[in-house]
Amino acid sequence: MSKIASALSDIDVAHRLADAARAAILPYFRQPDLQTDNKEADGFDPVTEADRAGEAAMRALLDDLRPEDGILGEEHGIKPGTNGRQWVLDPIDGTRGFISGTPNWGVLIALSKADGPIMGVIDQPYIGERFTGGQGVARCDGPLGQTPLRTRQTQDLSDAIVFTTFPELGSPAERAGFAAVARHARLVRYGMDCYAYALLAAGQIDLVIEAGLAPYDIQAPIAVIEAAGGLVTGWQGEPAHNGGRALAAANPDIHAKALEILRGF
Amino acid sequence: MSKIASALSDIDVAHRLADAARAAILPYFRQPDLQTDNKEADGFDPVTEADRAGEAAMRALLDDLRPEDGILGEEHGIKPGTNGRQWVLDPIDGTRGFISGTPNWGVLIALSKADGPIMGVIDQPYIGERFTGGQGVARCDGPLGQTPLRTRQTQDLSDAIVFTTFPELGSPAERAGFAAVARHARLVRYGMDCYAYALLAAGQIDLVIEAGLAPYDIQAPIAVIEAAGGLVTGWQGEPAHNGGRALAAANPDIHAKALEILRGF
Repeated sequence: MSKIASALSDIDVAHRLADAARAAILPYFRQPDLQTDNKEADGFDPVTEADRAGEAAMRALLDDLRPEDGILGEEHGIKPGTNGRQWVLDPIDGTRGFISGTPNWGVLIALSKADGPIMGVIDQPYIGERFTGGQGVARCDGPLGQTPLRTRQTQDLSDAIVFTTFPELGSPAERAGFAAVARHARLVRYGMDCYAYALLAAGQIDLVIEAGLAPYDIQAPIAVIEAAGGLVTGWQGEPAHNGGRALAAANPDIHAKALEILRGF
Repeated sequence: MSKIASALSDIDVAHRLADAARAAILPYFRQPDLQTDNKEADGFDPVTEADRAGEAAMRALLDDLRPEDGILGEEHGIKPGTNGRQWVLDPIDGTRGFISGTPNWGVLIALSKADGPIMGVIDQPYIGERFTGGQGVARCDGPLGQTPLRTRQTQDLSDAIVFTTFPELGSPAERAGFAAVARHARLVRYGMDCYAYALLAAGQIDLVIEAGLAPYDIQAPIAVIEAAGGLVTGWQGEPAHNGGRALAAANPDIHAKALEILRGF
């Protein structure tokens, strides 16, 4: 590791990764001839050249800037580390949104230890918007300049704005769990992918409920939301950083009210 | 009307309106203390100060730049014109998305005659993205610079990407109509409001299916989509500019295939 590399903070490194991913991914965005492969035999899970290029760019930088740290990436798998630190990368969270041209996909970058993420970035390259949380930082850099991230203090489900990505969320039991919370809410919206977690950290919404997540889908959101004053657990209140079902909440009170319902599913 | 005003093209005027709406609306976006009123006795239809300020700014400009033209606006109603031309304004299409902090709401501006819109703008102030169509123009000005708008040539529903705003779309019959098309599609997404129409014009998606629309929800999208090579009708193939149920399609072939299904509902 060079002197320059060792002088960079982890957040500096994360921002360099996000910059590299932006440069690798944006040339593919909204191109008419974007190739999509199908990872699933059943259903539609597109993997694009942009995913692979974005992750490769980030891994190359980490090999240089943080050679002793491990890497877990969606597209290129695990590189073991030697110091208990792991960078968890999802080059494009929300590939379906990406191939449809929406601005709600994001680059997810987390730095994690054994018991979960300690810092994370949610980056939206097209908007030029970056949500950073952890290691003393909780802020958004975007079109409105630099703004602090702070979650809401909503107390009642009847005042809550709830997001999930798919109305066709997970298993039948998981759909029923989501619906049981959503029917109490003031407003329910769909289709945001990782952008919903960013909005929760930014104090715009109160709950995000998801299922079927991988670790790289949720670790950066956990770090950003915790830094902004919120919390993320599984549907039984367990740690969420290994993926599966997630309940992200703006504060402990609204979390407890949603969890009480979700525990039954 | 001043000499300067008469020298402005209709598209110049529309862009000045969009600039004024951006300036009026953006100071309210993502503010923690945004007030929302409830227009509906039943359910949740927020009207914000931002809506009213955005429309007032556009109407003031029109009074100066196009005093003989009529105005139809969502918030402030009808101003009769004297020449058969009408500006149709929705200051914030997607208020629910706006109050949740998403970047998928938009300012809708159409210039219409008796038989429908002849020019339209879909503007997203936060992203700084503007879709213009009609009077010889079909283009997007945004973060990637200026790009032409051209719809896709998708022929089969099994290759189509379909968007709608709400999974809870309209009446039970309308939901069934949407579902009957959606089950044939490659990919279905939700939650985009007017941004879905912009993506269709930009060649990113193939169909948008909605119901319960007002004229100001659909007139700007019609103009932008037609200028890009697509078409918009009602679910029986009738003109859509008066609102109600809308089927927007990238080309006549995919439109015919979706219409064949929707006609039954």
